[in-house]
Amino acid sequence: MTKTNSGNFFEDFRLGQVISHATPRTVTAGDVALYTALYGSRFAVNSSAEFAKAIGLAAENMGHIAPVDDLLAFHVVFGKTVPDISLNAVANLGYAMGRFGEMVYPGDTITTTSTVIGLKENSNKQTGVVYVRSVGTNQLHEMVVDYVRWVMVRKRDQNAATSEEKVPELPGAVAAADLVIPDNLRLGDYDTTLAGSPHLWDDYAVGEKIDHVDGMTIEEAEHMMATRLWQNTAKVHFNQYTEGQGRFGRRLIYGGHIISIARALSFNGLGNAFKLVAINGGRHTNPTFAGDTIHAWTEVLEKIEVPGRKDVGALRLRLVATKNQPCAGFPLKAENGKDFDPAVVLDFDYTVLMPRKK
Amino acid sequence: MTKTNSGNFFEDFRLGQVISHATPRTVTAGDVALYTALYGSRFAVNSSAEFAKAIGLAAENMGHIAPVDDLLAFHVVFGKTVPDISLNAVANLGYAMGRFGEMVYPGDTITTTSTVIGLKENSNKQTGVVYVRSVGTNQLHEMVVDYVRWVMVRKRDQNAATSEEKVPELPGAVAAADLVIPDNLRLGDYDTTLAGSPHLWDDYAVGEKIDHVDGMTIEEAEHMMATRLWQNTAKVHFNQYTEGQGRFGRRLIYGGHIISIARALSFNGLGNAFKLVAINGGRHTNPTFAGDTIHAWTEVLEKIEVPGRKDVGALRLRLVATKNQPCAGFPLKAENGKDFDPAVVLDFDYTVLMPRKK
Amino acid sequence: MTKTNSGNFFEDFRLGQVISHATPRTVTAGDVALYTALYGSRFAVNSSAEFAKAIGLAAENMGHIAPVDDLLAFHVVFGKTVPDISLNAVANLGYAMGRFGEMVYPGDTITTTSTVIGLKENSNKQTGVVYVRSVGTNQLHEMVVDYVRWVMVRKRDQNAATSEEKVPELPGAVAAADLVIPDNLRLGDYDTTLAGSPHLWDDYAVGEKIDHVDGMTIEEAEHMMATRLWQNTAKVHFNQYTEGQGRFGRRLIYGGHIISIARALSFNGLGNAFKLVAINGGRHTNPTFAGDTIHAWTEVLEKIEVPGRKDVGALRLRLVATKNQPCAGFPLKAENGKDFDPAVVLDFDYTVLMPRKK
Repeated sequence: MTKTNSGNFFEDFRLGQVISHATPRTVTAGDVALYTALYGSRFAVNSSAEFAKAIGLAAENMGHIAPVDDLLAFHVVFGKTVPDISLNAVANLGYAMGRFGEMVYPGDTITTTSTVIGLKENSNKQTGVVYVRSVGTNQLHEMVVDYVRWVMVRKRDQNAATSEEKVPELPGAVAAADLVIPDNLRLGDYDTTLAGSPHLWDDYAVGEKIDHVDGMTIEEAEHMMATRLWQNTAKVHFNQYTEGQGRFGRRLIYGGHIISIARALSFNGLGNAFKLVAINGGRHTNPTFAGDTIHAWTEVLEKIEVPGRKDVGALRLRLVATKNQPCAGFPLKAENGKDFDPAVVLDFDYTVLMPRKK
Repeated sequence: MTKTNSGNFFEDFRLGQVISHATPRTVTAGDVALYTALYGSRFAVNSSAEFAKAIGLAAENMGHIAPVDDLLAFHVVFGKTVPDISLNAVANLGYAMGRFGEMVYPGDTITTTSTVIGLKENSNKQTGVVYVRSVGTNQLHEMVVDYVRWVMVRKRDQNAATSEEKVPELPGAVAAADLVIPDNLRLGDYDTTLAGSPHLWDDYAVGEKIDHVDGMTIEEAEHMMATRLWQNTAKVHFNQYTEGQGRFGRRLIYGGHIISIARALSFNGLGNAFKLVAINGGRHTNPTFAGDTIHAWTEVLEKIEVPGRKDVGALRLRLVATKNQPCAGFPLKAENGKDFDPAVVLDFDYTVLMPRKK
Repeated sequence: MTKTNSGNFFEDFRLGQVISHATPRTVTAGDVALYTALYGSRFAVNSSAEFAKAIGLAAENMGHIAPVDDLLAFHVVFGKTVPDISLNAVANLGYAMGRFGEMVYPGDTITTTSTVIGLKENSNKQTGVVYVRSVGTNQLHEMVVDYVRWVMVRKRDQNAATSEEKVPELPGAVAAADLVIPDNLRLGDYDTTLAGSPHLWDDYAVGEKIDHVDGMTIEEAEHMMATRLWQNTAKVHFNQYTEGQGRFGRRLIYGGHIISIARALSFNGLGNAFKLVAINGGRHTNPTFAGDTIHAWTEVLEKIEVPGRKDVGALRLRLVATKNQPCAGFPLKAENGKDFDPAVVLDFDYTVLMPRKK
């Protein structure tokens, strides 16, 4: 019997199946430094323990410490699911129902469990779509990240029968009532100068588009270091020997790497979007490779009042990232109006918190 | 109104203007590890909490911890100034009056403020020189780094009137009386074997030149990770799409990256130069790019007695770095005797502390 | 007198000589994060403080913390020896008698001392072999790593007399009685699901071979960051200006980098091999360069009962790594049956601990 993990194939999954993922992960200040080095993120709440303290979000543990970037927690959780869910994936098709719960601090240990909530074989009998809900919890069993993704997974045996099928109904967005607002958050002392932007929730309008202007070129060493840091084992990111003979001739970049680059670029225009609370949806619309330069733009989709709070509001945003194409023209669709522009690599629908005017 | 930061242009600055920079930064053990990984620095006081403790420089915080490299603190402070001072800079022209104050430890949060101390429009009316004094302070409002730099900044509008002009008088070197010597420093137990060099302050002579022998080649991923770690947002370092069409066809390397490489190389010959206390001056004399190999050499400019101390002295040093040229011949000037040798990329005048013989 | 370290040449070593190496090193959470980012290691005991606690291996220090990867400690110790032992080395010939003692935790400071235990001049009079036993100790003077390596070192002067010669007798493997089993280790709550593999000590058979399947391509920035992180100063890894004119035309990768990659790859098949206890032997059989893709396979050499323990056993393993060659065929020797296959870059004999069935 082979002792190596060849991953699950489509016919191995069962509706309702619960999978406990291996390799729990203690997040540290080292991960935070690498996150900054890889993405250059500048959101003050994650950069400064003093700033985090001033708005009620610092943990008290031998002095105070800042929470880690929400996407760092997302990547850790995502990475854990790969060996069980997507080792034999052809494509990562989408995200939905993503919520961020308890904030993660250096010292927290994250453990991840997934439930199979949907299965649908493709008509070619060679692949099928697996829908999983993955939940990361901290050492106190509190939810830190909870999201659904669906992936196209190969079948081991074309003739294998498929277990019970079901395509889950997934909402277009996380409901306002389901957003987790940190209990201790207090924005009375929020300092927009230190945060780096004067623009508050009140200043944004639905339909407004923001070109984030800056561009970031990706190197092989960077995306591989990031992807290994999250202990994501998808082979396509690491093995040039195999990928050199494959479809693209190159290593593919982990889609989450693009999300983090685009989010970091979005600081320039959204500097007060200090916390992610939801991932409503998302698609990696084209592959990216080392050498590509990422630009990004945002459209404000919705302004959401936070029940019972006058100091903070939520913004639902569409974050679009491109490769090798600046975003002054807000590129999205191809000329046929239906497909994505071939330069567009990410279409990401998420919700952030932002201070309101006093 | 656009919500992205397009940076200040020359005509936006006013003499005496005080700018509070965004994104305060808590330094962590993660930053220290990355500093070691990026530069390979071997100064024992920053490498070992036990060594730091033995000479009185460890912080006591759940056990003792070593201070971070002085240049790490410098880079953090420098990085903060970029979005406000040099986003539209053509060139970083020079440094002066740099002093290192309280040592920085993991857990400290650095906040940076700059004052415009000089303005001088260039005769072409397209650019001007901005002189700023930038001060980084820790969470106790103690000065950690205080320095002047001047940069050539583009004008937005060639016809814009210039505000009051002034070229500040900048001393050639920080005065001995202004050097900050750590209160707790005690060198009685300084171990030259663990420090890695037998050569003490008494062994160096003014005019002595030291070829640091070793060379270090720079990769794109390295200088970008470093520059992002300092949250330095200068576009020329990151965007190959734009830079590929620009003057050099390549991403430029942040000048501070070269300073840190040269300082790390200088360990081989200056192993006991355990702490920077001043940056007297400095110029980035030629641009560097990924693939360049950096070598360095040092000239001893001055031996400075530290008032009231027999255990420690200061050395004023000229640190010269080259690209793709070993330094056995101490390259500096071009054949015309006036310009810099095209291989010379850094001419850096700084002051260090070094133990004296007992 | 030059103040730079030109390293020791063969004739500088004396039998019995004890060398205290410079640059003691405090290990931190930053080093751990970089180790994960560079190698993608997934062994749960190093990844999760909670997992480490459950098996008795967490340190208690403001909450509990996980031990660092054993190879991280090895690299730190190895790096320290380079400036004194192998700066003028032609080749790193082998390892023997390696033992891991007290586990290393973030906050520990490692100091390294070597003893010259063998010297043998080569017949060409231009080089000789130096055998050293290097011991790394923590701040409590407890041994953390203790191993022998031998290197071929250049002579400065072909005519220099050699000091007393001796070739030490080195055992083929560390004796079972000499393995250090952590006192607090208790495997009653060992969770194979979280560990990521169902295969326990009882499931492995002597002679069994495991292809670890995955491959990892190496970038220049990665191996240089790793090697600098260990403060390993061997010039061949860093200086493309010089190496470009040398034998290979390229920078050589530090052999230890390959060991860590191969060990990380071996998780897929050996997920419960949670701790190294011995390095019995090892050879870097061919050089590796940036761009090479590493694969690995393992042969079980020996199953070792741990005296007095029914919950844990030891496995002696042969870990073979290749470049640009998958390992389904378990490549080892060349067609002549004597030399190594030119694709084989590492032949490493080590011993791990693994839980036994209840």
